[in-house]
Amino acid sequence: MNLEQLKRIVGENGWLGESDDLSAYVTEWRGSWHGATPLVLLPASTAEVSAILKHCHAERIAVVPQGGNTGLCGGAVPDESGQQVVVSLRRMNRIRSVSPDNFSLVAEAGCILANLQAAASQVGRLFPLSLAAEGSCQIGGNLSTNAGGVNVLRYGTAREQVLGLEVVLADGSVIDGLRELRKDTAGYDLKQLFIGAEGTLGIITAASLRLFPEVTGVGTALLAVDSAPQAVRLLAELRRSLGDQLQAFELISAPAMELVSRHIADTRNPLDDGPPWFVLLETASGDDGAMLEQELMRATGAGLLSDAVLAKSEAERQALWRIRHAVSEAQKHEGASLKHDVSVPVGAIGDFIDAASRAVSNYCPGARVIAFGHVGDGNVHFNVSQPPDWPAERFIALRADMADLVYREVAKFAGSFSAEHGVGVLKREALLRYRSPVEVELMRRLKAALDPHNIMNPGKVL
Amino acid sequence: MNLEQLKRIVGENGWLGESDDLSAYVTEWRGSWHGATPLVLLPASTAEVSAILKHCHAERIAVVPQGGNTGLCGGAVPDESGQQVVVSLRRMNRIRSVSPDNFSLVAEAGCILANLQAAASQVGRLFPLSLAAEGSCQIGGNLSTNAGGVNVLRYGTAREQVLGLEVVLADGSVIDGLRELRKDTAGYDLKQLFIGAEGTLGIITAASLRLFPEVTGVGTALLAVDSAPQAVRLLAELRRSLGDQLQAFELISAPAMELVSRHIADTRNPLDDGPPWFVLLETASGDDGAMLEQELMRATGAGLLSDAVLAKSEAERQALWRIRHAVSEAQKHEGASLKHDVSVPVGAIGDFIDAASRAVSNYCPGARVIAFGHVGDGNVHFNVSQPPDWPAERFIALRADMADLVYREVAKFAGSFSAEHGVGVLKREALLRYRSPVEVELMRRLKAALDPHNIMNPGKVL
Repeated sequence: MNLEQLKRIVGENGWLGESDDLSAYVTEWRGSWHGATPLVLLPASTAEVSAILKHCHAERIAVVPQGGNTGLCGGAVPDESGQQVVVSLRRMNRIRSVSPDNFSLVAEAGCILANLQAAASQVGRLFPLSLAAEGSCQIGGNLSTNAGGVNVLRYGTAREQVLGLEVVLADGSVIDGLRELRKDTAGYDLKQLFIGAEGTLGIITAASLRLFPEVTGVGTALLAVDSAPQAVRLLAELRRSLGDQLQAFELISAPAMELVSRHIADTRNPLDDGPPWFVLLETASGDDGAMLEQELMRATGAGLLSDAVLAKSEAERQALWRIRHAVSEAQKHEGASLKHDVSVPVGAIGDFIDAASRAVSNYCPGARVIAFGHVGDGNVHFNVSQPPDWPAERFIALRADMADLVYREVAKFAGSFSAEHGVGVLKREALLRYRSPVEVELMRRLKAALDPHNIMNPGKVL
Repeated sequence: MNLEQLKRIVGENGWLGESDDLSAYVTEWRGSWHGATPLVLLPASTAEVSAILKHCHAERIAVVPQGGNTGLCGGAVPDESGQQVVVSLRRMNRIRSVSPDNFSLVAEAGCILANLQAAASQVGRLFPLSLAAEGSCQIGGNLSTNAGGVNVLRYGTAREQVLGLEVVLADGSVIDGLRELRKDTAGYDLKQLFIGAEGTLGIITAASLRLFPEVTGVGTALLAVDSAPQAVRLLAELRRSLGDQLQAFELISAPAMELVSRHIADTRNPLDDGPPWFVLLETASGDDGAMLEQELMRATGAGLLSDAVLAKSEAERQALWRIRHAVSEAQKHEGASLKHDVSVPVGAIGDFIDAASRAVSNYCPGARVIAFGHVGDGNVHFNVSQPPDWPAERFIALRADMADLVYREVAKFAGSFSAEHGVGVLKREALLRYRSPVEVELMRRLKAALDPHNIMNPGKVL
């Protein structure tokens, strides 16, 4: 492997080698995957990315594209061979243009999501993609994994925010597809190929993205409901009455709420601990929640919820969201947990959680299901904490079998074993098992057509 | 070509042959293209479509998939060779399931768009795709062309309505991808390939589609504005104040309005004829337009519009929309017209119309630009009527040169030569000229990977 040629392409400040600390580039941030690389390239332009891939294509050098490295499935780290070069997009972090009239902007792949949100906000626009890692994840990674987050109910996933892409293909050729158009039926929509492909078909170097009007007058409430199916009925009713004002609708199980109350000092459940399920919802109605309050009173009268509290200030709103965001943190205090980011049709959420919980109990008595998630999108984070008296290692050893057990239940409800985290290396086996042979074969055909030498993030997804 | 085998697959009532009247299947509905076919197949199931393609793949028989045959670019009719078999999906017209809780339904490809809208409405849900041909176009065709229509500003194009697809590939294998999930990152998103591919990569046989809450309390207004850029500023201001309530924002030029008033008996412009541009807009605010009225008063105060009339009844609302929908009809009374369905960034609409109008005047003095369209999406129907004193044939002979002149202006504004009508046979030359060689080459690579024997709608798109 001739690394000198690659170093020359990016220049003196454009690479890190074996004498540098590369741990941030070869290790998944939670420590689940440790890889190795002889070279981290930090290109500063699309032309440099193109030259890198042209060289790697000719020399059959494997390339691992990397954004903020905040993924959860190991898709952005090199394998342990030491033969894969990392291409970090972090120096390509400019906002190239902002067009308030067109409700769009063009950002380079290495732009941090929070910076992109801020650039939109500065001109009175909203970029709605929002997720826990937004302070460090990069838009190129968000698009390559088709990220979800908390606003999908209203705005859709990352895919739906994309108007155009600039992409460098495996052979170094560049698709200059940064059109900022809402309607464009001029041939195959090539950008769709690269969204959610986890860097296995090419490298996204820039994107033109859709903006929305800024939201004002948010209403936020925490509700108690009797069952998950009741939450689904409430969701349908509120979508009917509030329409698009409904932006987020998150479900939290009582055990999840209980863990948060027990372990996270700065949180407090303002409702009784009694009910089995809680819903955190948010509306953008321009009236600071007045209409939401009215609709919740109506829903209470209709027996769709048993208790509710509305945030009366931004501080109260933050406190309610803090509960939701603290679930994962709280789980850490209870030892090991096995996590499953899955989706099912919204109407099936209650039955799925019941069935999967029973399957978990039968398989591992004493294990505790901590279910929560973006119910409005059918996305359940179906996490399982270890039995309290087990050593962590014993529980972690169940990872593959537990995943298979959960994914089998997901399949019964026509769901997906990966809702918003992608495949990476973690879920390759699941992809082969739960997608049909025809689908897998077509994915392989696409991979071969776009990356004939298999240099783009090999070993990921397929 | 052994047609008997194909006839056996679909059975006695499943085909039409040379002794039948095939004109509806081989002629584009406006009469712009006339083809020929020895056989129209009318499969009744996905299994039959699969058997047809398996046979055609093995025997190298070209197949033209056809929905309602309402397209405008010749994409759904066979060529003149008489060697292409038509596969009409019209007998596959069932709604397979409706899931109000999941805000989704599953429809077969031959389902007429209006029937699909009605099925959603019956359970209090909205299927938002809406366009002039909705009484006869089929959802399979809508998806294969990524149709647009009047609600794109709020709901996006056909692509954004799709949760999953069932597709028969060129070799007859079936992708059973009818998942009804809002989040699914389990490998490449294969369905995206077939949306907008105009039947050249496979046949869509069914789709799971996204539904929305039904809209109540619509507000509709016709406004007079001083210029197209002013309309764009007004749009941005109303999106800010009305948010997602703004569903449609259509621009009509004074010459277009004048033609409608002159030729269409049942229309009346309720505003003065003076202003150079009109805007027809619609909101869904649940208040029958009260908030719209208030915002329009504010916008008048800010100098963003010069006159406005709000519909006070459903009859008045229909009358305003009648003006918009009558533009094409009115143009027919003025002789031949050359039509260009293009898009540019929303902020560039005014400058594009000015520049393209100047180019038309220079090229063909006396020709009259009739511009209108879905401004909220940057989609301009840039139509040009013949000089009044010319014979129609002389003007029609300018078709190719006029298109090139308009598309060149579109390209200067980073727009698309096809906004919502696709490529078909009409715009293949434009595709080669206005998409980059890298893009065209990648489209060809996809075509070869999915349809190696080039049996799927050959001669269309590429």
